[in-house]
Amino acid sequence: MKRFLTICKWFGVTVVALTALFALILAARVALYTQKDDRERVAMKDEYLQRIADLTGDAPSGPNVVVILFDDLGYGDLAAYGSKAIRTPSIDRLSAEGAVLLNAYAASPYCSASRAGLLTGRYAVRSGLDHVLQAPWTWQDILLRIGWRNRRLPLEEITLAEVLRAAGYATGIFGKWHLGDSSPSMPTERGFDTFYGLLHSNDQGEPNVWQDTDVVEEPPIDQTTLTRRYTERAVRFIEEHRDQPFFLYVPHTFPHIPLHVADDRRGRSAGGLYGDVVEELDWSVGEIVAALRRLELAEDTLVVVSSDNGPWFQGSSGGVRGRKFDVFEGGMRVPFVVSRPETIPAGARIDTPVVGVDLFPTVLEMAGLPLPRDRIIDGISLASTLSGGEPPGDRVVYFHVLNEARGLRQGRFKYHDAQHVFYGNPMDWRWGPMRRRGPWMFDLESDPAESYDLSGSHPDVARRMRGMLDDWRESLEANPGGWR
Amino acid sequence: MKRFLTICKWFGVTVVALTALFALILAARVALYTQKDDRERVAMKDEYLQRIADLTGDAPSGPNVVVILFDDLGYGDLAAYGSKAIRTPSIDRLSAEGAVLLNAYAASPYCSASRAGLLTGRYAVRSGLDHVLQAPWTWQDILLRIGWRNRRLPLEEITLAEVLRAAGYATGIFGKWHLGDSSPSMPTERGFDTFYGLLHSNDQGEPNVWQDTDVVEEPPIDQTTLTRRYTERAVRFIEEHRDQPFFLYVPHTFPHIPLHVADDRRGRSAGGLYGDVVEELDWSVGEIVAALRRLELAEDTLVVVSSDNGPWFQGSSGGVRGRKFDVFEGGMRVPFVVSRPETIPAGARIDTPVVGVDLFPTVLEMAGLPLPRDRIIDGISLASTLSGGEPPGDRVVYFHVLNEARGLRQGRFKYHDAQHVFYGNPMDWRWGPMRRRGPWMFDLESDPAESYDLSGSHPDVARRMRGMLDDWRESLEANPGGWR
Repeated sequence: MKRFLTICKWFGVTVVALTALFALILAARVALYTQKDDRERVAMKDEYLQRIADLTGDAPSGPNVVVILFDDLGYGDLAAYGSKAIRTPSIDRLSAEGAVLLNAYAASPYCSASRAGLLTGRYAVRSGLDHVLQAPWTWQDILLRIGWRNRRLPLEEITLAEVLRAAGYATGIFGKWHLGDSSPSMPTERGFDTFYGLLHSNDQGEPNVWQDTDVVEEPPIDQTTLTRRYTERAVRFIEEHRDQPFFLYVPHTFPHIPLHVADDRRGRSAGGLYGDVVEELDWSVGEIVAALRRLELAEDTLVVVSSDNGPWFQGSSGGVRGRKFDVFEGGMRVPFVVSRPETIPAGARIDTPVVGVDLFPTVLEMAGLPLPRDRIIDGISLASTLSGGEPPGDRVVYFHVLNEARGLRQGRFKYHDAQHVFYGNPMDWRWGPMRRRGPWMFDLESDPAESYDLSGSHPDVARRMRGMLDDWRESLEANPGGWR
Repeated sequence: MKRFLTICKWFGVTVVALTALFALILAARVALYTQKDDRERVAMKDEYLQRIADLTGDAPSGPNVVVILFDDLGYGDLAAYGSKAIRTPSIDRLSAEGAVLLNAYAASPYCSASRAGLLTGRYAVRSGLDHVLQAPWTWQDILLRIGWRNRRLPLEEITLAEVLRAAGYATGIFGKWHLGDSSPSMPTERGFDTFYGLLHSNDQGEPNVWQDTDVVEEPPIDQTTLTRRYTERAVRFIEEHRDQPFFLYVPHTFPHIPLHVADDRRGRSAGGLYGDVVEELDWSVGEIVAALRRLELAEDTLVVVSSDNGPWFQGSSGGVRGRKFDVFEGGMRVPFVVSRPETIPAGARIDTPVVGVDLFPTVLEMAGLPLPRDRIIDGISLASTLSGGEPPGDRVVYFHVLNEARGLRQGRFKYHDAQHVFYGNPMDWRWGPMRRRGPWMFDLESDPAESYDLSGSHPDVARRMRGMLDDWRESLEANPGGWR
């Protein structure tokens, strides 16, 4: 008995000591966490931006650029992509007058990483902002800090706004930033002259509304007026900058949950509250396009309407498999409507796979600006494809989860490495065991819903794609930042 | 210091003692677990079966009944339901000559519970076999034993096979049983004259092949020949019983994973290995139907082809949301093709919602047999609907997870109670937090993929359906067995 008590004593001491040690290590990791920027690369970036400024001098040229990004809008939520539930006349008109990309992929299946890709032309694995930025000191944020994961887009990354501002564009963001909530990665520090909106998603913490670097509305904020507020400011921005090139970025807060809509728009849509919200977003697109038309800017303005990833709890994936967070098509495939009447033929329907990272090189080509030479740009310019040129046939699209490559698409085939798929639970599914399944290769032309693995039927294709995925992983491991 | 050590000692004692106690309780629960049958109800059941036997006497009548059940076949895997990838000429022909039910639901989104519903005409919550029966002494099985959950279909439940055998039918099952692996719930104890096949799914433990009550092939069994073996025995069964009514039940092992197919069928289908497997299953259907035709039995044989639940890792849900284990449509909606040339008009396409539990009362009505009076039968006879009659407009379909009602469908609307939905994980999704979302109400006619919650747009309908769900839950709580 005495011996038993002694064992218990030392067992107790061990447990208490290990727990204390573990807590100490975690606390130390949180306390010691600071994100560093790469000074040398920042200097090279400054050099590049200076070169851009020198090139354009006092005479900035190039089209106006308007990027309207929805949050969690599904591939099947717009009429141009088959929706019948939701009325989106403004986007429909834009689709009719411009190009509809039917195989457009977000750079990532979730928020921050997708936006990092969109604004830098590089997959988020490059910048380490490859997850979802969390509101400060939430438990998810503490996990990020424990893991010393980036909490903001590193300074050495070049945003589209920084390039265009250097080229003499006026730049404004009205909506959700989600690429950092601290200096030096606030929107006004990353290329935008002006910012109005939220730093995080509308369900993260208690969101503030920001104007540039100041909080102008504290919680609880009125989310029912957010879409209108972004829109009014976007229209005013266009009016104020009608005489110079501008880059207007409107990353809407919705249809991310919680859903909110203007009171007088509630209950109108056949798509329920979600539909009401999307119909208000369509109204917003209409207001922005109308302003461009009114000011006779529409002809030479590139307008892009897209989403950051697939739909979450509501919203339609258009019948493909999976939703937000998945590298199945439902998480990755997004609406992508592009209009620039001067160069893009009306009514184009483009099947070639494109990715969010393509925006950066596309805009730079359209504006006649050189790409940075010190880093890999993962995107490919769509300028020629959009204006009716032959699309590149061998385009490879990579799919990532955090910093891990999980699959790729080339042509009709998509190769998945073994995925952690929700397994279901024979005793219930309140807790969800994930099991690795795969690898799988799907023919997206005949099987867009990724139902039938063809890796056994086309073993050489599967082997080649497996090899490409391995190569890509090796290259990411050797040089994650993609520095040259 | 000494005080700290004393605290540690008693902390250690407490942890060790609690752990030991917990382990003891679990072990005791496993040791004490035995499943009981309700003697009084068993006696009432025997009385009912005796009444059936007395009714039919020496002159059994009624159509032959052939039920072919696939395991995890998706709603979108057959040409009659839109598939283009997989060639199923035999089922296509059966579909053309019979009725295709476009809104058929499994009784449950997973194996054992779905089969319990199919064979008893009652939702699995009635019998307590509302989960997935596990191979003995796997960790999942031990969890079931700890929870004293039923490991076999209780004896007081009445299977379709028991009724038909009492009515003078020859009865045979060739395939997967999954309603018990111990006496008195082996297939030959539950109404089948003969059994050949597996007791569990082909991924549970190391499956044996059984003939009646004996193991005839020990692990590792040759799964590539299972479909052929079931088929040959099914055809032989038809031949042997051509002169008397028979009930042939062929619950195939596939396309449940792991996928296996006859060597000479590998690599043929545009749907990959999964497609090869389904094409062999279609061959099996063709063989069985050909035997009926050859013996001039086809005209008055009811043939049903269906699946136990939605597709799992491969297979097509036909564009609806979710997969196996979900009460979203993708887990519940199944192909359901019915043929009986004598009474069912060729080419019927039936939209009215039906459920697996409808098979039991349908067959009994077709065979002129009375339903048991001592218990609620959840199913509704489809005999009139199938032969062109007006379908019942207010049919209510309930969706369960284990013994919990989670939603219902009536007409075009489906009401979900708040569901544990896979939430995604911003740090990765190797572990999957589930969050309750909802309640939601979807209009399945305009929105079969369950994308847009309309509970705000139709508050009275939502309130009414909520009330129906509450009533259903109350009735289940008061009388789970549904005894009268």
